[in-house]
Amino acid sequence: MDETAPLNRIRTVLCEPSHPGNVGATARALKTMGLGRLQLVQPLAFPHADADARASGALDVLQRAQVHADLDQALAGVTFVCGLSARRRDLAPEIRDARSAAHELVAHVHAGEAAIVFGSERVGLSTAALSRCHRLVRIPADSAYASLNLAAAVQVMAYEVRCAWLEQVAVPPRDSEALRPASHEEVERLLEHLEQAMRMTGFLHPDRPGRLMQRMRRMLARARPESEEVAILRGFLHAVSERH
Amino acid sequence: MDETAPLNRIRTVLCEPSHPGNVGATARALKTMGLGRLQLVQPLAFPHADADARASGALDVLQRAQVHADLDQALAGVTFVCGLSARRRDLAPEIRDARSAAHELVAHVHAGEAAIVFGSERVGLSTAALSRCHRLVRIPADSAYASLNLAAAVQVMAYEVRCAWLEQVAVPPRDSEALRPASHEEVERLLEHLEQAMRMTGFLHPDRPGRLMQRMRRMLARARPESEEVAILRGFLHAVSERH
Repeated sequence: MDETAPLNRIRTVLCEPSHPGNVGATARALKTMGLGRLQLVQPLAFPHADADARASGALDVLQRAQVHADLDQALAGVTFVCGLSARRRDLAPEIRDARSAAHELVAHVHAGEAAIVFGSERVGLSTAALSRCHRLVRIPADSAYASLNLAAAVQVMAYEVRCAWLEQVAVPPRDSEALRPASHEEVERLLEHLEQAMRMTGFLHPDRPGRLMQRMRRMLARARPESEEVAILRGFLHAVSERH
Repeated sequence: MDETAPLNRIRTVLCEPSHPGNVGATARALKTMGLGRLQLVQPLAFPHADADARASGALDVLQRAQVHADLDQALAGVTFVCGLSARRRDLAPEIRDARSAAHELVAHVHAGEAAIVFGSERVGLSTAALSRCHRLVRIPADSAYASLNLAAAVQVMAYEVRCAWLEQVAVPPRDSEALRPASHEEVERLLEHLEQAMRMTGFLHPDRPGRLMQRMRRMLARARPESEEVAILRGFLHAVSERH
């Protein structure tokens, strides 16, 4: 892990996680999104075999995780704190949705360290913990059942942070799959060939063509066929014509 | 659940999930995002206590989940299919990131049913499964460790679908041009018919088929043909066959 990478200036803090499986799944969620710093405040059981199992290929993140006696210790050196909570709160900090918060977090790492804080599975973020946050972050869940699993919430937030970061570094577009789209002429010749075969087989009546070829043209326009696909279709039409 | 709600026209399909815990966690992930339709293709163990435990408050989604013998059955009636995969593929359908695909899915539900397909934990989406997809969807993960847990990937995708839907509710879409997309079954029958005609004319040699049908399948996935277009092509193939 490159310690100077901006995403490494964002740490993830789990407050009193009670299921070791969630701690492991959190490590995995973070690593897949390029976030590798996990802090645990009074975990009920850590280390634990369930955590290792669910971490899968992110054992390194788990092994580097630091255990703290309280949240303040976990937030040492941090200058911007986002706390995740589904509940409405009195005296809450400013509310952001996950996407906006992710942009703020990524913007902040140029200035200093940041943290994303998650409460325990049972009770969520305590009022004391929330009071240490600059933002209360909400994942827009369905009001009928808004209770995301802890590691699932971490995955969504880490994903948004990664998306915000990718937007910021404005990565060049994905390299294409080396398609070779058929040229205008190739498609035109295919359409001619198709019309000819449709007439030859008696499927298309020359005196009442309707909008048949127009429809075929429209479908091919949507398909944007590759050269090779046009070649296959023409090969087939050739075989059809030969037999007639 | 309101069966008329647009998000209910999107089903989530897990192909051969091996860990019942992931099936339960998937149900929970879906329900928190207002998506309640889960389809299972050959699950290794279902129902299962681990699934129930991880589903938490989403037991209803789990209980409504349908088990299928194959993917085609799970996709019955579907007109737009997105498949999640982290791997590079030959002959893949068009690639989208999770966010763009979510917008396409939400836009599609005005026209018909849609599906999001996930492969198994161990091997991901099979080539056969991917060939049934109109889009290959990628979650932008870190190349150093891109392996999201299955239910975590479901959570991210469901979250993006919900965000896209919330955006769309805020800004109602332009009315589309009243296309009637062909169903999964219609396209499958067209492919069978095409293969049959290609064999009959001697264009396709049964003992060395190559990747010909795979290419035709991919082109049709891009074309997203309408019912009427499928009917035209089958009419033509019928005329071809009759003469042989």
